[in-house]
Amino acid sequence: MSQIRPIQRALLSVSDKTGIVEFASALHQRGVEILSTGGTAKLLEESGIPVIEVASYTGQPEIMDGRVKTLHPKIHGGILARRDQDQAVMAEHGIGPIDLVAVNLYPFAETVKKPGCSFADAIENIDIGGPTMVRAAAKNHNDVTIIVNAQDYDRVLGELAEFSGVTDATRFDLAVAAFEHTAAYDGMIANYFGQRLQNPAEPERFPRTLNFQLEKKQDLRYGENSHQNAAFYIDPSHHEASVASSTQLQGKALSFNNIADTDAALECVKSFTSPACVIVKHANPCGVAIGANIQEAYERAFKTDPTSAFGGIIAFNEPLDEQTAHLIINRQFVEVIIAPGASKKAQTIVAAKKNVRLLITEAFGTRKAQFDFKRVQGGLLVQDIDHGLVADSELQLVTNAKPNDRELNDLLFAWKVVRYVKSNAIVYAKDGMTIGVGAGQMSRVYSAKVAVLKAEDEGLEIAGSVMASDAFFPFRDSIDAAAQAGVKAIIQPGGSIRDNEIIEAANEHGIAMVFTGMRHFRH
Amino acid sequence: MSQIRPIQRALLSVSDKTGIVEFASALHQRGVEILSTGGTAKLLEESGIPVIEVASYTGQPEIMDGRVKTLHPKIHGGILARRDQDQAVMAEHGIGPIDLVAVNLYPFAETVKKPGCSFADAIENIDIGGPTMVRAAAKNHNDVTIIVNAQDYDRVLGELAEFSGVTDATRFDLAVAAFEHTAAYDGMIANYFGQRLQNPAEPERFPRTLNFQLEKKQDLRYGENSHQNAAFYIDPSHHEASVASSTQLQGKALSFNNIADTDAALECVKSFTSPACVIVKHANPCGVAIGANIQEAYERAFKTDPTSAFGGIIAFNEPLDEQTAHLIINRQFVEVIIAPGASKKAQTIVAAKKNVRLLITEAFGTRKAQFDFKRVQGGLLVQDIDHGLVADSELQLVTNAKPNDRELNDLLFAWKVVRYVKSNAIVYAKDGMTIGVGAGQMSRVYSAKVAVLKAEDEGLEIAGSVMASDAFFPFRDSIDAAAQAGVKAIIQPGGSIRDNEIIEAANEHGIAMVFTGMRHFRH
Repeated sequence: MSQIRPIQRALLSVSDKTGIVEFASALHQRGVEILSTGGTAKLLEESGIPVIEVASYTGQPEIMDGRVKTLHPKIHGGILARRDQDQAVMAEHGIGPIDLVAVNLYPFAETVKKPGCSFADAIENIDIGGPTMVRAAAKNHNDVTIIVNAQDYDRVLGELAEFSGVTDATRFDLAVAAFEHTAAYDGMIANYFGQRLQNPAEPERFPRTLNFQLEKKQDLRYGENSHQNAAFYIDPSHHEASVASSTQLQGKALSFNNIADTDAALECVKSFTSPACVIVKHANPCGVAIGANIQEAYERAFKTDPTSAFGGIIAFNEPLDEQTAHLIINRQFVEVIIAPGASKKAQTIVAAKKNVRLLITEAFGTRKAQFDFKRVQGGLLVQDIDHGLVADSELQLVTNAKPNDRELNDLLFAWKVVRYVKSNAIVYAKDGMTIGVGAGQMSRVYSAKVAVLKAEDEGLEIAGSVMASDAFFPFRDSIDAAAQAGVKAIIQPGGSIRDNEIIEAANEHGIAMVFTGMRHFRH
Repeated sequence: MSQIRPIQRALLSVSDKTGIVEFASALHQRGVEILSTGGTAKLLEESGIPVIEVASYTGQPEIMDGRVKTLHPKIHGGILARRDQDQAVMAEHGIGPIDLVAVNLYPFAETVKKPGCSFADAIENIDIGGPTMVRAAAKNHNDVTIIVNAQDYDRVLGELAEFSGVTDATRFDLAVAAFEHTAAYDGMIANYFGQRLQNPAEPERFPRTLNFQLEKKQDLRYGENSHQNAAFYIDPSHHEASVASSTQLQGKALSFNNIADTDAALECVKSFTSPACVIVKHANPCGVAIGANIQEAYERAFKTDPTSAFGGIIAFNEPLDEQTAHLIINRQFVEVIIAPGASKKAQTIVAAKKNVRLLITEAFGTRKAQFDFKRVQGGLLVQDIDHGLVADSELQLVTNAKPNDRELNDLLFAWKVVRYVKSNAIVYAKDGMTIGVGAGQMSRVYSAKVAVLKAEDEGLEIAGSVMASDAFFPFRDSIDAAAQAGVKAIIQPGGSIRDNEIIEAANEHGIAMVFTGMRHFRH
């Protein structure tokens, strides 16, 4: 019982001119009268489409360099009039109905990113008339069609062709998009202004209010646990290989925990330039390795902790090939495989296990700045995402013993892994492969102990390996434990008041130790 | 070199009438001409303040039941005119300057919460003219003062008294507040509409776009690590005892990690009705206990893991008293103490350690629904916060052995703790005190093992204790390990395909086991 609303008069005034000529032309051919302003009016006229300028329609010339052009009762009465009850007042005031409004706003964020955009330019670019028309039309979606996205023109033309009008469902859907558009627009302005309260020329990092809008990618069956409802939202403006922008080629729908773990695995595997594999379970890497190819990397990553790898998430930094797919599928239960591509043959092999989720990302590019969030009751901790990197040249040797080349490579490898392990984090590694991962302990020495325990249980030898610690050692106990296990070299931030004691312990044991000067807590 | 802008004409049209009569009266006494509409005009007239109705000012009557009243060039030209360049056009069109706009919007969220508010009512309540005036005045803050919050009236009156006008800094600050107001308003509408795309009468839990605004409570020195910038934002509409709404009585500024850990400690301690203490380190409870009073609770919580408790966060569910404060301050280094109150004497004792952060919350009430977030690259996982509770009567006994009363109490105690331990989580407890906490392992059996290891190292006896697991056991190995350690009873969700095997193992060892049917993953 959908209600159809015909279109007799349209107002078109768009910043994004994509498709507007074709749309206006189609409307004109259907006998729709077209009102327009500024650049849009000029473009349509040049394209031979009859257009009535808003100024001549209202009888009120555009004034103040365009600051006031559409803010007029004849426009807003025409948009807001309830067709079933405002006929008399419209007639009395010479207000004709405006049935369709196509208006979009130049993204404020883009405006202010332009080189040389001054604070005054930014302010001048704040649109007042546009959002008002968008909001008025969206409010009155019972009678009016509002379009803020060029990709919706065809949908409306399709309905006009089919029904000689626009359906309820479409008008409402477009009205929601309209309020989403104005909410995002004013949110951007509030963020921009809110960073400039002290000094417009020197914006602060964190605005007075944090405004944001994210798009729902999918509803999830449930959250971290089955009694929690959940959904996955994405930021479509963030362009980086990620689980958010990945494509799922096959498998069951991703769960909340799948998405979180896949993110952890992918972010970790991005750290490596050699072919690498990261296996994640319960938010922690349980096996990481590099190799001559990803098949070898997978074989070695799996060896660290085959028990935990069962039902894990596997990420690669190179496209999935046939051999590696074969190896995984025939060996273990896997929840998700993610890689920057997968050969046709690899896809066929994975297809044998219908439930396995195979995700493909774009090629890894540079990492983008982004706010990281940590939720607390009634609030939100906001920080820069941890993209801190330490160059080899910044490492500070603090012991008498020096790491040899093989040990140095392993130290750098282990350092890349340890930053993705939940704190307190200890990683043992040898020959580009994790030997033991100690995660999430309240005191550092237990992270060291549990990693040794696991390595022993899996028959891996820690002797000859290196050790990475995500933060400084508060006491020498972890160094003593490492020495006992046969560790040859240690990488850690340094910075403890007991650093001297720690260094002394390493020297006693003949262990080489380097400081990074950068901590990587991750809770 | 602040520029002062005088006020000769003001437009007042407010939903929140707080202080508007006094404000208008003060403006009138300064010779300001007052324009107004609707309810505000009526109220001011009744209070004997001369007011010009907008309709008579523009010559355009209010039409369509108020849908169109202020959307007129004479209003918006008066607000948007640049005083230094638009004089001629203003004169030509009979537009007088409007120097101050006081407009606020009835919170859309409050509108739709009203009993009986229909979808049509909600739509009718969307303000079009108001936001337009607010946005226009905020854009033109170079010349115009915009007030959206009643608490800003006095500030403006103060400046009028002192400078006969409003300063640059104040106009800008108020303009930022204005865009924050409209961004929040349209965000609420977008959320409301975005939940109703399928069916207005049956809103979905998660809107198509998630729009939100949070207020910065404080900039932080840095984030999780020193190379990350950070700030703490709060949701002032969330009314619940929390670190976000707590008051800091003394100590250094809270760090990012302090806030996160304090939240974990406070949320955990809220679970108990008896006097309780929770000590958190690295996002995990490292000691939890109940007692006859909080002093005893603290003594016992501390015993679980004195090493980790060093530099920890301590939370209580009753006000901090003198004895307990004395005990903590004289025994250990503590980062934060949080409680629903602190006696004067307790405050004096804590004051001896100037750096210790002492936080006071309101009394604990019922827990409020809230969205929990988990950040991933380019996206956000959103879920209901985990407030799942299992009543004693819902516990399912699955073994031949039954827990006795003491064991049952310990099972329920351990179950309250384990949900706040990072997964995989295992907690051993005895007599209302944690004996060992196994956190954050990639396979469950290592959480069980590390908890035993720590208990042994601290000289605590697991024999006679109970065990809680945040999720089901995939294999019987953890049960065997528990039996070996002397565990008498186990609480866990159940639900494994190997539940029979697990139950059989418990029966073999004479261990009592109950299922909760509810999992508490927390990563």
